[in-house]
Amino acid sequence: MKKPTILVTNDDGLFAPGIRKLISIMRSFGRVVVVAPDKGQSGTSHAITIQTPLRLVKQHEEKDYVEYAANGTPVDCVKLGLKVALSEKPDLLVSGINHGSNATINVIYSGTMAAVIEGCMSRIPSIGFSLDDYSHSADFEPSESFIRRIVEHALEKGIPEATCLNVNIPAVDHKDIQGIRICRQGVGYWDERFDHRTDPRKREYFWLTGEYISLDEFDDTDEWALRNNYVAVVPVKFDLTDYEAMNHFKVLTDNEKMA
Amino acid sequence: MKKPTILVTNDDGLFAPGIRKLISIMRSFGRVVVVAPDKGQSGTSHAITIQTPLRLVKQHEEKDYVEYAANGTPVDCVKLGLKVALSEKPDLLVSGINHGSNATINVIYSGTMAAVIEGCMSRIPSIGFSLDDYSHSADFEPSESFIRRIVEHALEKGIPEATCLNVNIPAVDHKDIQGIRICRQGVGYWDERFDHRTDPRKREYFWLTGEYISLDEFDDTDEWALRNNYVAVVPVKFDLTDYEAMNHFKVLTDNEKMA
Repeated sequence: MKKPTILVTNDDGLFAPGIRKLISIMRSFGRVVVVAPDKGQSGTSHAITIQTPLRLVKQHEEKDYVEYAANGTPVDCVKLGLKVALSEKPDLLVSGINHGSNATINVIYSGTMAAVIEGCMSRIPSIGFSLDDYSHSADFEPSESFIRRIVEHALEKGIPEATCLNVNIPAVDHKDIQGIRICRQGVGYWDERFDHRTDPRKREYFWLTGEYISLDEFDDTDEWALRNNYVAVVPVKFDLTDYEAMNHFKVLTDNEKMA
Repeated sequence: MKKPTILVTNDDGLFAPGIRKLISIMRSFGRVVVVAPDKGQSGTSHAITIQTPLRLVKQHEEKDYVEYAANGTPVDCVKLGLKVALSEKPDLLVSGINHGSNATINVIYSGTMAAVIEGCMSRIPSIGFSLDDYSHSADFEPSESFIRRIVEHALEKGIPEATCLNVNIPAVDHKDIQGIRICRQGVGYWDERFDHRTDPRKREYFWLTGEYISLDEFDDTDEWALRNNYVAVVPVKFDLTDYEAMNHFKVLTDNEKMA
């Protein structure tokens, strides 16, 4: 079998320990092309850069490996990877390992997962990996065997078209991880407030802060899995249509043509 | 009945003609609080500002009306609106009128629709309006009666929890608009390339460019509706779980505990 080509990105930036670990794992699977942000891009979601020019700088190259830094978002990195760095479609896209959980509604804000969704929109099998530990010095070692298993499955069995994976890994010792669970996105919200401050020039400014509140008691969510030391795998799609709600709005179409 | 409180935002910025039109329509329905970006934020999706402080500046205030500019993204504006500008939950959130379509997968990149989804995540009935015309001088007049009808329906009948609306309006004369259709998100992709240039200092840079390719032949999509001069209404949800794909991955859970 031809060596697979794997595109790697993240949202914590090219120099974060999480992506270094992911790169080292991926290099044992095939040819690796890295295009990652040149600085932290957490919370940038699916943003693309259209007001300012993008730069792409090759950082390093050796056999079956090349690494670029881009001055854009994770989604910019995927687009630059597919259209500039690579000459053909990769066999797999992986993003992460994110420093911090992207479970529940965090998937919506996550640059790591936006890169994965962008890959999926380009019909590339795509997987995001996140460790439930925000610290720079998080221990990514226990993640490795689970990442290997999920990547092997993706390369062997594929991923259904228009689906991608959001994988969240508990931040515990390997021996304490209970296995893998296929989950749905947990229901909850961020109970937020703004930390309201005054700068030295007497102008007000705000920092967003808050905590996640779960509204979900069931054991089939990513939040439950993480909390119970399972690796949470959520299949994610980008068709946002709420088919079940369509009927509620049918009355709006009553008149063939409005006055 | 108590006058409804309506939070208005957009991604083209507080001074775009589209939001001025939306504000003028909304003021006939109730008390209006505007929190909008102080500059264009197209393509910022669900990005939030966490690396730099947020500023919120009151621009104007009169009876039942107040208007703020924020130096953040549309989602920042919604959060600032809910937690700083407003003392209680609004009855409705509207975003737009966007200069340009947010139909099909554009919903994923759109700051206008991210603001709507953020409102929905906060359990507020939320609607995004977009006109299929990117120009600053687009004619928003034909949109008005359709916006009124959809807003009246939302205020009277509500919107199912965890659903919000993506409304796209064709850029044609009012007499040519065929009515409203409830649609699903059309399937397609952006066929993109990077315009590769060299700056005066001989450094390379890139601009993203491309065109939308529809992969959908059916008449139940937002793309079909717009193309046939209908107002396209797509109910949107933020649970990204691909329930149908779950089975494909069950094999990953085979071992209760991995070696």
